[in-house]
Amino acid sequence: MTKTRSQTTAALKIIPLGGLHEIGKNTCVFEINDEILLLDAGLAFPTEAMHGVQVVLPDLTYLRENRHKIKGMIITHGHEDHIGGIPFHLQQVDIPIMYGPRLAIALLQAKLEEAGVANRTQLHPVGPRDFVRIGSSFLVEFIRNTHSIADSFTVALHTPVGLVIHTGDFKMDHTPIDGERFDLQRLAEHGEKGVLCLMSDSTNAELSGFTPSERAVIPGLDRAFSEATGRLLVTTFASSVHRVNIILQLAQKHKRKVSVLGRSMLNVIAHARTLGYVQCPDDLLQPMHVVRHLPENQVVILTTGSQGEPLSALTRIANREHREIQIRPGDTVVFSANPIPGNTIAVVNTIDKLMAQGAKVVYGKDRGIHVSGHGSQEDQKLMLALTKPKFFVPIHGEHRMLVKHSETAQSLGVPAENMVIVNNGDVIELSPDRMQVSGKVKAGIELVDTSGDGVVDGKVLKERQRLADDGVVTVAATVDTQGQLLATPEVHVRGVVTTLESGLLRRLVQETLAQTVRERWSEFAVGGTDIDWTGLREAMEAALQRLIRRELRSHPLLILLLQTTAQATEPSEEANRRTRKRRSEVAAV
Amino acid sequence: MTKTRSQTTAALKIIPLGGLHEIGKNTCVFEINDEILLLDAGLAFPTEAMHGVQVVLPDLTYLRENRHKIKGMIITHGHEDHIGGIPFHLQQVDIPIMYGPRLAIALLQAKLEEAGVANRTQLHPVGPRDFVRIGSSFLVEFIRNTHSIADSFTVALHTPVGLVIHTGDFKMDHTPIDGERFDLQRLAEHGEKGVLCLMSDSTNAELSGFTPSERAVIPGLDRAFSEATGRLLVTTFASSVHRVNIILQLAQKHKRKVSVLGRSMLNVIAHARTLGYVQCPDDLLQPMHVVRHLPENQVVILTTGSQGEPLSALTRIANREHREIQIRPGDTVVFSANPIPGNTIAVVNTIDKLMAQGAKVVYGKDRGIHVSGHGSQEDQKLMLALTKPKFFVPIHGEHRMLVKHSETAQSLGVPAENMVIVNNGDVIELSPDRMQVSGKVKAGIELVDTSGDGVVDGKVLKERQRLADDGVVTVAATVDTQGQLLATPEVHVRGVVTTLESGLLRRLVQETLAQTVRERWSEFAVGGTDIDWTGLREAMEAALQRLIRRELRSHPLLILLLQTTAQATEPSEEANRRTRKRRSEVAAV
Repeated sequence: MTKTRSQTTAALKIIPLGGLHEIGKNTCVFEINDEILLLDAGLAFPTEAMHGVQVVLPDLTYLRENRHKIKGMIITHGHEDHIGGIPFHLQQVDIPIMYGPRLAIALLQAKLEEAGVANRTQLHPVGPRDFVRIGSSFLVEFIRNTHSIADSFTVALHTPVGLVIHTGDFKMDHTPIDGERFDLQRLAEHGEKGVLCLMSDSTNAELSGFTPSERAVIPGLDRAFSEATGRLLVTTFASSVHRVNIILQLAQKHKRKVSVLGRSMLNVIAHARTLGYVQCPDDLLQPMHVVRHLPENQVVILTTGSQGEPLSALTRIANREHREIQIRPGDTVVFSANPIPGNTIAVVNTIDKLMAQGAKVVYGKDRGIHVSGHGSQEDQKLMLALTKPKFFVPIHGEHRMLVKHSETAQSLGVPAENMVIVNNGDVIELSPDRMQVSGKVKAGIELVDTSGDGVVDGKVLKERQRLADDGVVTVAATVDTQGQLLATPEVHVRGVVTTLESGLLRRLVQETLAQTVRERWSEFAVGGTDIDWTGLREAMEAALQRLIRRELRSHPLLILLLQTTAQATEPSEEANRRTRKRRSEVAAV
Repeated sequence: MTKTRSQTTAALKIIPLGGLHEIGKNTCVFEINDEILLLDAGLAFPTEAMHGVQVVLPDLTYLRENRHKIKGMIITHGHEDHIGGIPFHLQQVDIPIMYGPRLAIALLQAKLEEAGVANRTQLHPVGPRDFVRIGSSFLVEFIRNTHSIADSFTVALHTPVGLVIHTGDFKMDHTPIDGERFDLQRLAEHGEKGVLCLMSDSTNAELSGFTPSERAVIPGLDRAFSEATGRLLVTTFASSVHRVNIILQLAQKHKRKVSVLGRSMLNVIAHARTLGYVQCPDDLLQPMHVVRHLPENQVVILTTGSQGEPLSALTRIANREHREIQIRPGDTVVFSANPIPGNTIAVVNTIDKLMAQGAKVVYGKDRGIHVSGHGSQEDQKLMLALTKPKFFVPIHGEHRMLVKHSETAQSLGVPAENMVIVNNGDVIELSPDRMQVSGKVKAGIELVDTSGDGVVDGKVLKERQRLADDGVVTVAATVDTQGQLLATPEVHVRGVVTTLESGLLRRLVQETLAQTVRERWSEFAVGGTDIDWTGLREAMEAALQRLIRRELRSHPLLILLLQTTAQATEPSEEANRRTRKRRSEVAAV
């Protein structure tokens, strides 16, 4: 590898495209010598105001414009907010190669196949302490860490400017369920040799103390198993592989069979079992039609829905809409997860519905049946203490979490001037003796419509909000070239509150339009032939708006479809040909 | 007062119309001997899915159908979820007289005047240990309690079947800010003589221990005042009169002037000052244009927006949309309130925006700057221990809170069979030796549209949701009696994601409709004169649906406005007369 002097002294650019000032869609660009290394590509879920939106992605403009520089991607772990955006990326840019933990690669492989983009990249699983070279500038080392999903990594990027450690998502779990310990030795070794920059998970920066080990939930869950007299329904995050293992082990201990409900839970368990991350005897897992015939105290139903997701199995059970399961008095439902902010109401509504049907519901922070997968302030301090970074960038968190994390780092002696709090799109320039924010690339969000791969823009969202708040009134009218309103106008009202009877509304619309055309025709029909249809339409719309406000006392969207007999009645053959041509052009785009 | 034997032995019916299995719209009916006493009439705020809804009320069908029985209303305190529904009630039923605490009556008076219904009832303020007689069956005693708003009551209803105590909202604050202590003596006296039934606030039934005194926030707030170097913005619930007093006293102590922002905060403070519940020297409160010229460390801005409400002053400040205030580095913002579930995301977004503009933000449970106004398990036990009720009804809470509260009551020796967990609309029948749920009246919600006083029904909400998720495609077409499509159809697309160019879409619609009419005309034009327009329309709609799904790859609402030349061109004079007549009928309804 030959490098010119200017290349080796270039600064490393770090450009987070998602994951800052938010929890979700973690996507980060590392760039040096015209080579881009991507780290993770996650998605976020839409807020309530994003009507009809399926998933939220970062703005990918920067990657589209620099697609030729992309050398590869590294993946820290298999959570949706780290790998869920990858299929959408591959629809837009080429990423020749991806390296990641075995479990994440297995989950990703299935995603890419479903989206029909599996042939657009190469997936390579890696193990702890594996090194991979990406492009000519990046040597990446995978360091085992501990998190709620199994097989998760912190990464060390050996770059021309120095060593950058990106923690991925982590907590310091010294007694992990799978025995795969955090590779503290490797972190310490790097700390001893010199870490130029640490980028570290800020999710729980507001919480003091250590986050407990995953093992801490065992006594609480064991108690719930012991106290259950009938069927036991347990819900948790599908991706929390360690938790799933604990639940399966408790089921064995308490001599219950387990039936799994919900697509994502089935999917994760299938992949995790194949790879050995979930271990249980074959006959422990049984389909619903088998456990249905077992005594109630020999049944566990492991289900999705811990966040009150509308379509999840548990929510459908609570709504009495599930095909296979109805709640019976004597059932116990265990929520082994805390609601993520924004989901609280959905979760407590689900709990209330389950209780009202006679279930005993075990939930809440004081039950000791859930711990976070992200480290608190003491975990974050340990990471800083082991790596002793020169520069520090708090990542993976909302603004106030980043601020808290930077305060924590200052309490360990990292100078305030050696850290930056950045937003998505900020360009961090890192050289051996300096870190600064040097610019900004286009950043923001791209909303993927539920209809498929279309991108929802702000205008469409505003129209949807307007339609949602006030409904729509549609009027169709035909005016001939003599200024006569032909036929009775058609009127259609949707999503509007009114006591006005529809025949009456239609007659009022007819009166109003007939009057408007009659009174103002001479204004728009200049010389009797050259008719200003736009002006007439505006006059008709204004009159209708006044009528609607007066009669319906609301402000729905008004759509006036004005037809005139001046137009052609049927498309010509020539027009048809043009249409077909343009359709094939569109299809080719 | 003479009563027949059958009257005196009738059971008391207690019918909660709102406030059970929810927090909000507390509304309760007490009925005996054909007399109805109402207790509170609150409102709830719409969920995100209730598009275009202003407020949520209980279903008032039962009151409309029994309006002749209504003798009066008693009000426990001035919170919106207890008095906010009263103007809407008065639009529908007569309530001859209302009794309540002075502060609630003052707030209510203003509400009724604004709604133009002040003349429909008589408002009477009452004081502690006041008794009022309502109808011939109810003697009501007002017992001072402690809560987050000043001037709050527990009520004792002396009825022909026995004494019923309704706690209103309460916590056991032994050191209240205003010195107005909970009248424990009166509760104890009733407990000694015999309480037939206790109905008690369940809001914090899931929390162990006592809720701290309001006084507990003083040290934390004092520290925030001491540490602030620049301007200090403080937000809390407008109705938390005690908290407002604490903030005003701290401002005096720290030699700062106070400017108040936000309509509800100004309104509550004005009424509370007039009545003496808020006490401060006149020159402490200053308008914004005066404090603007003071040194920054002499300024407090007391503002609404503690829940991230979109239109509140603080939210507008955070969004840089406030006319009078911009955040500057050095400002401190104190959130002296916890987010209510459902508001968490709005609140943390506001915090993040304020921090990003350079403000120091003091928030969170560990700061000791907020306490709840509702009692926890130990407060609830004390209420049960003092009143020693024979029967118990947990109220004011979601289902799981009611269940917890009933478990607490059982731990104090109230037998499980002497309590009921009821839902809105359940009819509780109470006699001296028995309590049971004897039936159900129509219950549910009435949604008041933002447009005014219209009621939004489920159909309208579903249409709005559909419009919000998928948008709308409107097509207007005209077909003559010969089966010719006249003119080019008009097409309008709103809220739909598509890359299809509009001229092309219009041409595709025209092709599709022309082909449908051409191919299927003979089917619907029986004998050439009697045309089945409905059948033709359905065929056209089906063809359009297929086209839209194929070309737009989405499922918008389709509105086809089909005009035919078979219809009259202008309304006749006779039709116009009919229209006018029906309009006047509608207006008279």
